[in-house]
Amino acid sequence: MSAAGPDSLSWKRFGDRLAAGAVPLLPFGAYEQHGPHLPLSTDTVMAQGLTRRLATVLHGEVDTLVLPPVEYGQTTDNDGFPGTLTLSFDTVRAIALDLAAALHRQGARCLVVVNGDFGNQAPLRVAARESVQRWDFPVLVINYPGMAEAADAALTSEPAGYGLRHADEFETSIMLALTPDDVRMDTAVAEYPEYPAVFPALQIGLHELSVTGVFGDPTAATAEKGEALLERLSAAAAELVRAFVSRVDGDRASGG
Amino acid sequence: MSAAGPDSLSWKRFGDRLAAGAVPLLPFGAYEQHGPHLPLSTDTVMAQGLTRRLATVLHGEVDTLVLPPVEYGQTTDNDGFPGTLTLSFDTVRAIALDLAAALHRQGARCLVVVNGDFGNQAPLRVAARESVQRWDFPVLVINYPGMAEAADAALTSEPAGYGLRHADEFETSIMLALTPDDVRMDTAVAEYPEYPAVFPALQIGLHELSVTGVFGDPTAATAEKGEALLERLSAAAAELVRAFVSRVDGDRASGG
Amino acid sequence: MSAAGPDSLSWKRFGDRLAAGAVPLLPFGAYEQHGPHLPLSTDTVMAQGLTRRLATVLHGEVDTLVLPPVEYGQTTDNDGFPGTLTLSFDTVRAIALDLAAALHRQGARCLVVVNGDFGNQAPLRVAARESVQRWDFPVLVINYPGMAEAADAALTSEPAGYGLRHADEFETSIMLALTPDDVRMDTAVAEYPEYPAVFPALQIGLHELSVTGVFGDPTAATAEKGEALLERLSAAAAELVRAFVSRVDGDRASGG
Amino acid sequence: MSAAGPDSLSWKRFGDRLAAGAVPLLPFGAYEQHGPHLPLSTDTVMAQGLTRRLATVLHGEVDTLVLPPVEYGQTTDNDGFPGTLTLSFDTVRAIALDLAAALHRQGARCLVVVNGDFGNQAPLRVAARESVQRWDFPVLVINYPGMAEAADAALTSEPAGYGLRHADEFETSIMLALTPDDVRMDTAVAEYPEYPAVFPALQIGLHELSVTGVFGDPTAATAEKGEALLERLSAAAAELVRAFVSRVDGDRASGG
Amino acid sequence: MSAAGPDSLSWKRFGDRLAAGAVPLLPFGAYEQHGPHLPLSTDTVMAQGLTRRLATVLHGEVDTLVLPPVEYGQTTDNDGFPGTLTLSFDTVRAIALDLAAALHRQGARCLVVVNGDFGNQAPLRVAARESVQRWDFPVLVINYPGMAEAADAALTSEPAGYGLRHADEFETSIMLALTPDDVRMDTAVAEYPEYPAVFPALQIGLHELSVTGVFGDPTAATAEKGEALLERLSAAAAELVRAFVSRVDGDRASGG
Amino acid sequence: MSAAGPDSLSWKRFGDRLAAGAVPLLPFGAYEQHGPHLPLSTDTVMAQGLTRRLATVLHGEVDTLVLPPVEYGQTTDNDGFPGTLTLSFDTVRAIALDLAAALHRQGARCLVVVNGDFGNQAPLRVAARESVQRWDFPVLVINYPGMAEAADAALTSEPAGYGLRHADEFETSIMLALTPDDVRMDTAVAEYPEYPAVFPALQIGLHELSVTGVFGDPTAATAEKGEALLERLSAAAAELVRAFVSRVDGDRASGG
Repeated sequence: MSAAGPDSLSWKRFGDRLAAGAVPLLPFGAYEQHGPHLPLSTDTVMAQGLTRRLATVLHGEVDTLVLPPVEYGQTTDNDGFPGTLTLSFDTVRAIALDLAAALHRQGARCLVVVNGDFGNQAPLRVAARESVQRWDFPVLVINYPGMAEAADAALTSEPAGYGLRHADEFETSIMLALTPDDVRMDTAVAEYPEYPAVFPALQIGLHELSVTGVFGDPTAATAEKGEALLERLSAAAAELVRAFVSRVDGDRASGG
Repeated sequence: MSAAGPDSLSWKRFGDRLAAGAVPLLPFGAYEQHGPHLPLSTDTVMAQGLTRRLATVLHGEVDTLVLPPVEYGQTTDNDGFPGTLTLSFDTVRAIALDLAAALHRQGARCLVVVNGDFGNQAPLRVAARESVQRWDFPVLVINYPGMAEAADAALTSEPAGYGLRHADEFETSIMLALTPDDVRMDTAVAEYPEYPAVFPALQIGLHELSVTGVFGDPTAATAEKGEALLERLSAAAAELVRAFVSRVDGDRASGG
Repeated sequence: MSAAGPDSLSWKRFGDRLAAGAVPLLPFGAYEQHGPHLPLSTDTVMAQGLTRRLATVLHGEVDTLVLPPVEYGQTTDNDGFPGTLTLSFDTVRAIALDLAAALHRQGARCLVVVNGDFGNQAPLRVAARESVQRWDFPVLVINYPGMAEAADAALTSEPAGYGLRHADEFETSIMLALTPDDVRMDTAVAEYPEYPAVFPALQIGLHELSVTGVFGDPTAATAEKGEALLERLSAAAAELVRAFVSRVDGDRASGG
Repeated sequence: MSAAGPDSLSWKRFGDRLAAGAVPLLPFGAYEQHGPHLPLSTDTVMAQGLTRRLATVLHGEVDTLVLPPVEYGQTTDNDGFPGTLTLSFDTVRAIALDLAAALHRQGARCLVVVNGDFGNQAPLRVAARESVQRWDFPVLVINYPGMAEAADAALTSEPAGYGLRHADEFETSIMLALTPDDVRMDTAVAEYPEYPAVFPALQIGLHELSVTGVFGDPTAATAEKGEALLERLSAAAAELVRAFVSRVDGDRASGG
Repeated sequence: MSAAGPDSLSWKRFGDRLAAGAVPLLPFGAYEQHGPHLPLSTDTVMAQGLTRRLATVLHGEVDTLVLPPVEYGQTTDNDGFPGTLTLSFDTVRAIALDLAAALHRQGARCLVVVNGDFGNQAPLRVAARESVQRWDFPVLVINYPGMAEAADAALTSEPAGYGLRHADEFETSIMLALTPDDVRMDTAVAEYPEYPAVFPALQIGLHELSVTGVFGDPTAATAEKGEALLERLSAAAAELVRAFVSRVDGDRASGG
Repeated sequence: MSAAGPDSLSWKRFGDRLAAGAVPLLPFGAYEQHGPHLPLSTDTVMAQGLTRRLATVLHGEVDTLVLPPVEYGQTTDNDGFPGTLTLSFDTVRAIALDLAAALHRQGARCLVVVNGDFGNQAPLRVAARESVQRWDFPVLVINYPGMAEAADAALTSEPAGYGLRHADEFETSIMLALTPDDVRMDTAVAEYPEYPAVFPALQIGLHELSVTGVFGDPTAATAEKGEALLERLSAAAAELVRAFVSRVDGDRASGG
């Protein structure tokens, strides 16, 4: 990882490092409700924080280029809450595909997207497939790998169910580790929504399920837990990137 | 302006302020070459910096909500330089239209886009028109208002011609005022490209015209000049916002 | 359920039953490799078979209209195998959205899609969301509900991992229950692919993982197990439909 | 033709036959009103029935692969009748184009679409053209070839005019030959709509012209007439396929 | 009809006449090969000429506004001949739909398109349907009504078959009546292409069938025959417009 | 320039000249209000007139093919005035891109668009970029080059501000030179709109600013001034075409 952040790279240095084989890492976030105690940019902060840790873990093994984050994502399920500013499915897909195309034209060998928002998963997956179909340009999408295991190991509260960890101990701990000044623990409250029988087969606005926007219990969150989570997540992410790069290099070696 | 930045707002506070009539300000940037001495994120930094100054100038008159920046834009003309990661015309348009739609659904009365990148002007203009056509939701796009006059008053170097002020004294001064650590003045050089006779009627990759990516002379840039420029630009932008809001309020009063 | 299949309904009878409140059930299949022993239409046969069982279970409670199946789906992951004829993501989405629109115009209160193919899940989910956004017309997508529990209870072989049950004991048992003449048990073989470290974060053509197209062990499959699976799946699906219809009716009662 | 229907082919057998040069035949139907006595799936049944006869006629000359039918089509003109579930023009076009693309990727030399629905003609024609423009992959669309001559030879009732033979002696006879249990001759009635002067230059919902949905007189229909019609139609279709395949082979031989 | 052509109307006069109920007539042409003796703009000249005659015939009954022609159309079948500049199917559709939308916004009650090019028929038909679906704005598309009967009555040469009258006695006579200086009868030759067995089920570039671009025999063409054809065609077109306007007025009277 | 207009070229002559290297010139107009005294087709007439002058100036140097005009354009800003029939942004872009594609397929080396309408500038610019990106086919868009200087030299009235010269002395003089019978000088009036503070950052319907549709003073217009303007504009346009063609030829010579 460069000591300098993505905002401080000039085009020459970017070009030199890309030519030398650096792997671009793109944090993909969202602007979405995260309860009364977390900021709307939580997913972006988490994606960006995890990206930086990932670059640090890979340092010495895989040279990386941390790109600026995409600060908006597909968050339709939460847009019954004020402040949730969602992009459409197709816009998230287009952003990812455009950036893959630009990197491909400039000689990058692949792209890694570090995604912080559940709703981005499907459109990023479609974009990754289209990138391969159109330009044979590989895109790896990382969605908090090993999240369940990391949470089991580090956390004490019960998850809210259906894999929903929203503004809970998991996310709040990570935010306390990354940007404690933006977390207002005095307003943190637990909420365990009751799910209707038709959930999640039917897409239901989350504001119908939760009054506060919290799914779980953030009150037990600590920065230490957040650090432990980030360590595990970044280690799992690094494993994926290593395997991905090795696969990409193998394909190139064999002319694929 | 809120003391807290956009990343630290929770959904409740966002909702309260929107309901009270706050005007959302969206900085729209780009990731584009800016010579050897300025970072690729220059347009984003400038759009964000101008947005904050604008919010400060309007403070007490017009309540504003500063949104997170869009960090990528349409920068095709520069994509012959490594590191320029361009979105397509339609993706920039879709991002702006999606965010206008989201704000409209949530009860905002209007949207102000503070644009930092030349290539975004056309797609943002199309999006603004479509927002009115579809939802009667007004979008004001601000493109460095009064730039020529501000530059004449504050700067000493000649512009490079055709309105191109790229990585020159204008942009470099503003960056020195906003984020001096990211400017490497020791690598700043002047370049005054010769334009072919067919320019600008024909779209020519800027890398065919400039070796360094600079259009003008950044060596005379200072943070003081940057402050003077920002003061004039934010004052002109504030004029536009006042007139816009007054027009929007008039339309609403008359049932338009 | 009507004694007559969907092919035998005339427009008058269809219209009468729709006007009386019948809920349309749409089986959504695919044409995709399913190992050496199962037909390419396996997903369609399964979706159609489950739809009919579901209609039977609901008989007397919820009147239903079984529509003709969609015989092609999004099966990109398998299109390295001959015979897999995939539709694109957007085509699957368009089919579902068009049929929702048509039913909405004709006065249906909702639509239930019984999906038989993994790759259809994401585009059907997008279509369901768009149907609500555009016309407030609710669409429930059913993806083998309670599959894991049903398999645990009825089957003896190990699953192949990552939720992939493809041409295995699960699917083969159901096919033996539904259309035994199309299953060639003499050619059934077990295959437990080794997954690369980057799976499933990276979309990998399944033909790179499996030689036969099988993921699991179909040799232990029986029609009796298939019956047991269908009973559980249709019961779980019926639960979802009941909850869905009750929710739809509630919304209509309250003017929503 | 294979003794087994398309639902029973495994990917291996499909792949072997495609590699050996088999020509895929795709029946394209619709779900559309066909009077009180014919099922909504009439066009699908007819397209599928004609496809099978065509494969039989070609047997020994041209090896064919009968694909599963598309059960929905573009039937806007009839969607004033309940039960007519129309796809949009662009969706029909996308289905055909996707399937052509999939077959092209898998090494097929061409595709034959056997179309059963008038409204599909235009979008299938556009798709066929696009398939050639994009991939040089030839698609033949067959629309009941020699229908007028066959009807003149076999039928006794007058046609309803403007080429409209809908739920009349022609369609009813063919359905009696293909699926007599789904025809309710006791409810068959003749209707000869009066056409307004502006027909067919203006697209008018057919429910404005016909009360029953019938255009012509189905009461004289018999299975024998249906057999005679199918014999003529499949012979004419076989002529087209022979000429098409010969042309395709010629192009391939000459490197075209 | 106005004495002045469409180019000479000011917005005020246009507005006054539209407000008074004038029916807009849009000639839709093409730029397409028409043999060695006719200009590439033949379809546009013919559409425009027929439109003017139509306006004259309707004068005193139906007030009309003749719009400027669209000079390009969908002519893919001919684009193997130099000079044929085809628009895509979707562009022709978009032009017609945009103009329908603009006229609808301005209070027109309907639109009549007088089409001069075979390839425009399908996209104009789609646009007309979409105009009704979106805005309930009726669009009548006129395609040389009564052409076959008019040709039988006025002409002496045999048609080339399959309804193709291209650069033949029909078109040449009309051009001689409309713009004799653009017809070079000394270069006119007859050509009767042999059609392959697969025609017209398969879309074949017309340059594969005809060397000259002529389908039929233009040598017998005269301006007198052209006048006779135009008289019949405009009378038949006027019948359609009368019926259309009466239907539109009826719908409006009944609140439809 | 050919003595014959574009309407009189046959495909053979078009093909011969294109093969010999002739450069196609496409006039792109609009149907848009131009005050009480100018026709709605003013932009088309001007684009076509300038194109013909340009061809004359280039005669002997660069062989050109004058194509038929596009008579409709993107004129949204004026569509509050009756008679303004606007195409959408995407339709103008599609027309230009389709025609570039057609010319490219037929062996043209480039395309020159002579644009007469302000609103077409952005979509034509996007189309020109896309043409290069997709097919490496260069498109030059000419927008009244040297207009400001020509107006300063030839005209006596003040412009209306913001570069808006609409139905003023500039346009009226050119129309008097090109088509005096279509100009009604007795109805010409001057109007100098007051611009709101938010103009032109906000897109405002021009009918909100001007009662007559005039921006400036047409009363001083004369045909002589129009001739002087056309001479300067066509000379400046010819300079651009020479530079463009030389650049295109250079690229081809170097294999670019």
